[in-house]
Amino acid sequence: MAQSAKRIVLAARPVGEPKATDFRLEDYPVPTPGNGQMLLRTIWLSLDPYMRGRMSEGPSYSAPVPVGGTMEGGTVCEVMASNNPGFAKGDIVLAHSGWQQYALSDGTGLRKVDPKVAPISTAVGVLGMPGMTAYTGLLEIGKPKAGETVVVAAASGAVGSAVGQIAKIKGARAVGIAGGKEKCDYVRNELGFDECIDHRSPDLAAQLKAACPKGIDVYFENVGGKVFDTVFPLLNDFSRIPVCGLIADYNTIFTKDTPTPPWANTIMRAILVKRLNFRGFIVRDFAAMFPDFIRDMPQWLREGKLKHREFISEGIETAPASFMGLLKGANFGKQLVRIGPEKM
Amino acid sequence: MAQSAKRIVLAARPVGEPKATDFRLEDYPVPTPGNGQMLLRTIWLSLDPYMRGRMSEGPSYSAPVPVGGTMEGGTVCEVMASNNPGFAKGDIVLAHSGWQQYALSDGTGLRKVDPKVAPISTAVGVLGMPGMTAYTGLLEIGKPKAGETVVVAAASGAVGSAVGQIAKIKGARAVGIAGGKEKCDYVRNELGFDECIDHRSPDLAAQLKAACPKGIDVYFENVGGKVFDTVFPLLNDFSRIPVCGLIADYNTIFTKDTPTPPWANTIMRAILVKRLNFRGFIVRDFAAMFPDFIRDMPQWLREGKLKHREFISEGIETAPASFMGLLKGANFGKQLVRIGPEKM
Repeated sequence: MAQSAKRIVLAARPVGEPKATDFRLEDYPVPTPGNGQMLLRTIWLSLDPYMRGRMSEGPSYSAPVPVGGTMEGGTVCEVMASNNPGFAKGDIVLAHSGWQQYALSDGTGLRKVDPKVAPISTAVGVLGMPGMTAYTGLLEIGKPKAGETVVVAAASGAVGSAVGQIAKIKGARAVGIAGGKEKCDYVRNELGFDECIDHRSPDLAAQLKAACPKGIDVYFENVGGKVFDTVFPLLNDFSRIPVCGLIADYNTIFTKDTPTPPWANTIMRAILVKRLNFRGFIVRDFAAMFPDFIRDMPQWLREGKLKHREFISEGIETAPASFMGLLKGANFGKQLVRIGPEKM
Repeated sequence: MAQSAKRIVLAARPVGEPKATDFRLEDYPVPTPGNGQMLLRTIWLSLDPYMRGRMSEGPSYSAPVPVGGTMEGGTVCEVMASNNPGFAKGDIVLAHSGWQQYALSDGTGLRKVDPKVAPISTAVGVLGMPGMTAYTGLLEIGKPKAGETVVVAAASGAVGSAVGQIAKIKGARAVGIAGGKEKCDYVRNELGFDECIDHRSPDLAAQLKAACPKGIDVYFENVGGKVFDTVFPLLNDFSRIPVCGLIADYNTIFTKDTPTPPWANTIMRAILVKRLNFRGFIVRDFAAMFPDFIRDMPQWLREGKLKHREFISEGIETAPASFMGLLKGANFGKQLVRIGPEKM
């Protein structure tokens, strides 16, 4: 009889904030690879805000997870057995095998991870999708110039922390927004941002204005909500707003059906008068920049210009609670789940 | 004693829609040019929606006209007397001398108009600011590709008519929106747009959807309001929205003080998920494109690829009523006021 493994499936589509009963822990038999296939053992599971979108139906850039299906997610895995000539037993690979301990793969979309470059967990963090999101959105859309002011929220998180540090590397002023004194201290003192504001402060607007005496030239939008409202009046003429996430609104957006938008004339008027450039993006739109990314980012890591932090929960059973925490900002750094040991 | 001339001044800042009493017709003595100056006689006054902005205080890209000051505007003038070595008596010039019959100029910002290229009124129309607005916004921000669908409102107007025709020249499908059957027939039959929809139709949304079976790739935004609401759900992934005007909302925007925007999560979510690119612009931002513009547009005019239409009112006294009409779409083509004869 096959060995048993564990996975987390979507039990129900959440209404508003996801709750524990929207997830279900299941046992399943460890599968056997067929022709051309390999068996992957999950070491690291990445938790990311986009997963909230996959839990709901409705138009988005990817299909939702079906009810009863395994939750989606990026993973770092070890190849345990391989019938695929491109991969050998013992290889470490970046996969998208989801919230489960074992999975089959025919190699499609896999990338080998070299453990000598950096700890393998960075393949789903600063050297992976979140790092690439920061790098491409900031450099291709934000285009910060030396002396300009770049603002990013969730500044201690996987994307935000890289955005501010890359802005500094490019000679810009970096202002972060984060939740609580501990995170703000880290962003200023460890990551080297010029300022970091606590979004829970009652005088957020006044503090942000003081931190941006020359206004804001690039606002890297990954949260939305109140932070956007606060940033909006400070945007300078010709500022650029890469839009890659709206975590503050994910729970409400997905509970309402809003086919006809209100005519948001304040936003549109600002776009016109200030010649703003709002541009949405998904990291895969910039796949062509991968060679630049993988040239620059490990180099910056080695030079100590780029720091990162991981926030790790232990065991697949902790994935739902960690994900619910992530949506509320309970994590401090890149949220990972250790599904299995690096070496068995 | 000096000869008397007439001008229109701003009598009061309008609340909502401008009314006749917001303007005042005044007599003033024809001025005498000093050292380096010349006397300009206005032949054509251009009326344009942006002037509504100049009538109100509040943040915009230009200072407002002071109460009691002469209304601003682009003009085509004859040089009547010149103490300026760069200009001779009899020269025709493009100026910004406002709603008046005579003005002094030291030559700053003037451009000579060659009457042999095209009728001189085109210097404030299809070969002037409105044409340049269409050309630069569509080609630099909209970037229509062959086979894509470009939508523009006020399609029989100075900017919209050029936008759709340039889109056709570039191989795109052009869909116009205009007010009334006569304008729509003109846009389809004379300008050669693929479709034109009457924005007064009760089933505007259904008609627009039918006219854009593959969705909308470029929406050239010059009206806002209900048309924007109708276009919004039809925007394709990666569509571009050059924002150069919001005429439908000019009267309301300027009557409200809205320093804190509502959080327009529907718009922001669409920007993210569809990777939209909203970018505001003012034609002078693209001044570097003037050589391209002045190479292409007269050529297209001569080849018959570009048609235009003028809507002329006679005499400076008619300027306020014509301007109020312009804001309601009463004009059919580029709105001009003939202030004086081409030859005296």
